[in-house]
Amino acid sequence: MNNLDSLVAAVVERLFVPVEASGRHVHLTREQVMTLFGHELTQKRPLSQPGQFLTQERVTVVGPKGEIPHVAVLGPARKEAQVEISLTDGKLLGITPPVRMSGQVEGTPGVLLKGPAGELRLDQGVLAAQRHIHLNPEQASHFGVRDKQVVRLQTLTDRPVIFENVVVRVSPDYEAAVHLDYDEANACGLGQGDLGRILP
Amino acid sequence: MNNLDSLVAAVVERLFVPVEASGRHVHLTREQVMTLFGHELTQKRPLSQPGQFLTQERVTVVGPKGEIPHVAVLGPARKEAQVEISLTDGKLLGITPPVRMSGQVEGTPGVLLKGPAGELRLDQGVLAAQRHIHLNPEQASHFGVRDKQVVRLQTLTDRPVIFENVVVRVSPDYEAAVHLDYDEANACGLGQGDLGRILP
Repeated sequence: MNNLDSLVAAVVERLFVPVEASGRHVHLTREQVMTLFGHELTQKRPLSQPGQFLTQERVTVVGPKGEIPHVAVLGPARKEAQVEISLTDGKLLGITPPVRMSGQVEGTPGVLLKGPAGELRLDQGVLAAQRHIHLNPEQASHFGVRDKQVVRLQTLTDRPVIFENVVVRVSPDYEAAVHLDYDEANACGLGQGDLGRILP
Repeated sequence: MNNLDSLVAAVVERLFVPVEASGRHVHLTREQVMTLFGHELTQKRPLSQPGQFLTQERVTVVGPKGEIPHVAVLGPARKEAQVEISLTDGKLLGITPPVRMSGQVEGTPGVLLKGPAGELRLDQGVLAAQRHIHLNPEQASHFGVRDKQVVRLQTLTDRPVIFENVVVRVSPDYEAAVHLDYDEANACGLGQGDLGRILP
């Protein structure tokens, strides 16, 4: 990169946040991983958030009205299972996922998971992820926002949208990224490398 | 309705526009209807726009990667075929629909349709409908907008969104309604009877 390119990159980074679409995926406990696969999770590639990764493992999510095969399993294993789907997926499965922040599984619907080594009935854990922005403390300070703040985000996309109720999450473990689900990504015509602007 | 109810209804109607989700659907010429079904379209129920109706007839839409059965056919027959799908549907079919206003089919992708009486290959006609607002001239005047104007629309929904690039369409044949596709409807958490506000 020459000097101009790196200047432009620095300015873009200061003004905008990369927007990413999160496909449907599952988080599992270590015990549940063993039940479904009979072995530990194997990393396929790292995700934008440091330490998080896509695994080689896939599960079938089974609802009362339909099932979705080949659903991604993310690593590392967590303390509690969580199945993140879109409202479109929910229609197909026959499950209405409440819109929740990750981890807020209390009272959410359950679902059946099928893996190559076994099945697993979850009593709860199905949700549609509340749209959110990951930032580290330095980035949050640049944008003038704080952890748990609710902001509006304007997408610089094909079908521009201003998303309201976007939750800011700040942690030293994070890198700047807006996470939308596929309904939201398609509604704004999100493409590779698209950016968003946090509105004052 | 008592006086207060009707006053409230009148105020709501002056301030907000009903928001509707348009599912995937097909418009056909009279000749194409005969090819696919062997008989004329039969009305099932009227739609929000006067003169438009859902028919009893259904087609299977077949793309290079997948197919979608039981797709709604709307009536009356038109001068040109049009297949309105979401970007989510496009992914399943293996077709990338451009975002267009209804009727702007020039240069759009083609597709195969299968009906109970025959098949039909369309050379063009597949699009994702540009989000839009139907208004009659009196309603347009109340909202201070004109035909073809591009406005922003704030949804009063579970997951509130401000849609940019919403096209206003004015005709004496119309009744006030915002039309979103299912990606957009799910992105804003649209429910039955939800309203939108045209932003100045």
